[in-house]
Amino acid sequence: MDEPTLQTLKVNQTRLLSSLHHTCQWGTGTRWGTAEATETGMSRLSLSDADKQVRDWFVETTKSLGCTVSVDAMGNIFAVRPGREDGPPTCAGSHLDTQPTGGRYDGILGVLAGVEMLRVLEEKGVETAFPVGVVNWTNEEGARFPISMISSGVWAGDIPLDRAHGLKEVGGGTATMKEELERIGYLGSMPASHTAMPLAAHFELHIEQGPVLEAQRQKIGVVQGVQAYRWYTVEVVGRGAQAHTGTTPFSSRSDALLAACRMITLSHDLATSHAALASTGILTLHPGSVNTIPGRVTFSLDIRAPLDSTLDTLEAELKSRFATIASKETTKGLDLAVSWRTDSVSPAIHFHEDCISAVREAAKAVCGSDSLARDMVSGAGHDSVYTSRHCPTSMVFVPCRNGVSHNPEEYTSPEDCAIGAEVLMQSVLRYDRLRYLRSGGGE
Amino acid sequence: MDEPTLQTLKVNQTRLLSSLHHTCQWGTGTRWGTAEATETGMSRLSLSDADKQVRDWFVETTKSLGCTVSVDAMGNIFAVRPGREDGPPTCAGSHLDTQPTGGRYDGILGVLAGVEMLRVLEEKGVETAFPVGVVNWTNEEGARFPISMISSGVWAGDIPLDRAHGLKEVGGGTATMKEELERIGYLGSMPASHTAMPLAAHFELHIEQGPVLEAQRQKIGVVQGVQAYRWYTVEVVGRGAQAHTGTTPFSSRSDALLAACRMITLSHDLATSHAALASTGILTLHPGSVNTIPGRVTFSLDIRAPLDSTLDTLEAELKSRFATIASKETTKGLDLAVSWRTDSVSPAIHFHEDCISAVREAAKAVCGSDSLARDMVSGAGHDSVYTSRHCPTSMVFVPCRNGVSHNPEEYTSPEDCAIGAEVLMQSVLRYDRLRYLRSGGGE
Repeated sequence: MDEPTLQTLKVNQTRLLSSLHHTCQWGTGTRWGTAEATETGMSRLSLSDADKQVRDWFVETTKSLGCTVSVDAMGNIFAVRPGREDGPPTCAGSHLDTQPTGGRYDGILGVLAGVEMLRVLEEKGVETAFPVGVVNWTNEEGARFPISMISSGVWAGDIPLDRAHGLKEVGGGTATMKEELERIGYLGSMPASHTAMPLAAHFELHIEQGPVLEAQRQKIGVVQGVQAYRWYTVEVVGRGAQAHTGTTPFSSRSDALLAACRMITLSHDLATSHAALASTGILTLHPGSVNTIPGRVTFSLDIRAPLDSTLDTLEAELKSRFATIASKETTKGLDLAVSWRTDSVSPAIHFHEDCISAVREAAKAVCGSDSLARDMVSGAGHDSVYTSRHCPTSMVFVPCRNGVSHNPEEYTSPEDCAIGAEVLMQSVLRYDRLRYLRSGGGE
Repeated sequence: MDEPTLQTLKVNQTRLLSSLHHTCQWGTGTRWGTAEATETGMSRLSLSDADKQVRDWFVETTKSLGCTVSVDAMGNIFAVRPGREDGPPTCAGSHLDTQPTGGRYDGILGVLAGVEMLRVLEEKGVETAFPVGVVNWTNEEGARFPISMISSGVWAGDIPLDRAHGLKEVGGGTATMKEELERIGYLGSMPASHTAMPLAAHFELHIEQGPVLEAQRQKIGVVQGVQAYRWYTVEVVGRGAQAHTGTTPFSSRSDALLAACRMITLSHDLATSHAALASTGILTLHPGSVNTIPGRVTFSLDIRAPLDSTLDTLEAELKSRFATIASKETTKGLDLAVSWRTDSVSPAIHFHEDCISAVREAAKAVCGSDSLARDMVSGAGHDSVYTSRHCPTSMVFVPCRNGVSHNPEEYTSPEDCAIGAEVLMQSVLRYDRLRYLRSGGGE
């Protein structure tokens, strides 16, 4: 497909949004605004009855658009539209499940934009060189079955099928993923595997879930990869018994909370100097009495950066500096013991240059200017992390209001949804053209 | 009584400790050491069966030592030994109730040292100028009925009798103080009042509950008063919805925990510069997820100083500086809202110079040197706070191991118990001599 032809392919904003809100009738969540049909959040837990309903809609709609639909053993749904030649499909993919108090855009926009792409191709009678398709990945949120991106993880071979099938739902229920897949009729016969269902490339349109695009008044994030993150639990323990706040001078204290406060502040300052992030979201202390100095504090520490090497450096500096904070030279009182437990290590993901270029060029063509797009690194994980291990991958970010996600008020304007969907479609088609050229074809 | 006569009066250390441990058979708590008779903590909640047993022992023992025993409407017990002349008694007083996981010394030592004083006076046939006595105050700990020092507070006229009588026990029971006083036979007929039962002076021997005497290798704290304290609850609230730790740059954050950490650290630093204390014992945050920036943090703030004016200054500076920390100039991100609630204000208590002098001179005489005693301000409240409102008062502190109290391992050596008891006795007798001289008597 040549550039002029590509330029004629426009998504239909009204149709895209209309379909998106139509599918949000299944699993409607908390109301936040007055517009009856659109201003509620979503609560569509994976493999629930609502999830079955939206899956049925997805299968039926994509079949009506000329796709062959396959479901694998994790309930991942692959809707593939044939091309002139056979081969693995170039796919747009994301997820239709949501957080229990989620919104209408996280995941959903990515799948619905894929459906809109299929509609444009059908409407215009476009024939791609190779198959293209849309994927709905199961349980991306990890909100019901508590491993995020579990089904793309099984597809990638990183998570064993048995473990995933046996995973129990949270919140007091006893159902496993396999039982629920069976119950709603989405335990497919195809193996959940990148060998059984290879992809030529994977593109994912997603809301940014952060404030950068909105603050910069830009429209598209060209996603280079996913930043590395590491989660730790840090425990600070004072010496001796718990002490009374009224009778214990500072020189005799071993104040675990004061030390923890210094550590948390330092983690912020050091992360700033490394252009990294550091955050504490959980802090517990003992014994928890107004007039007793806390003898033990435990806090979470989440550090992130685009490069693993940055986190290596930051971790080493934090360990050294925390030890200094805990020493009596700093406390001016008694020393404290500090210990670290590593809870999670997620290396940096670097997406494929071919896909990144496709997104960048698509963004430029759709927005008419370089200045409305920016290279970004994703702060959160996505199914694209797992697809990137087995096929070229990139993502397209669009702004979301106030950077809010995982919240009923999550919102992206219809215009921005449409721009994102058009960039997604153009990225898929540009990648298809690249495959064609590399296979020896001409334009 | 002249100085040489005073010098001959020595407490019997063996008898003092033997009686103390004897009374700890009632309400024995958690074992912490191997010495069977002495190395457990105490769990003698006020007005429990164990408290009744130790009260019965106290009444019987003091009667056998020539005392008249009166019980007031709060169960306060006054054991008074006649002097040559009538008049209000000069009393040693403290409390026999303990924390649920308390030790053998807090309160108990003060009452048992008073009993030992009575024994020495009887043994040596000492006749004081005016009556002297020993008081056991009810529910000083506030551990069962949740107002500390409630019965000396009623005696002082600061807490209404009805309120105290109607106070319910904590921990799920439904008994009131009045019901329990009746049940154990200690609802006395005498009004609980400083007019019905005036005291000439009140001296209280107590463990320091802090580490200063031990650290300084000193034996006696000459207590000048009780420091002022104020308790606040500070709430820090971020702007906007909760944000993701991975996708929200520092410049777009409103991190309530980071701000709270800076405030807690600052409170420590500012208190240090004012020779005051600042402590945070409780901190809660929301929502409490590793990868969500806390949007709301609440923490307790306990500030203390010997002078009310110091706390006035410190409070004003903290309020101003906390506001600065919450402003976006400091956060480099979004600003936060900070609000203060005052939970408790306890003004500084200044004991009476006559009593302070009596303790100081007694300490010098008993220890044989000025250097083993130090002037101190009590960090915690005691019944002496309330007595000081209606009669000259001071306290005698003795070292306790590692500064620990309200813990089974609370410990003061037998030698230090005896030194403290002797200083207590000599203080009472010196005050009695002062009264005699002031009333026109000669030595």
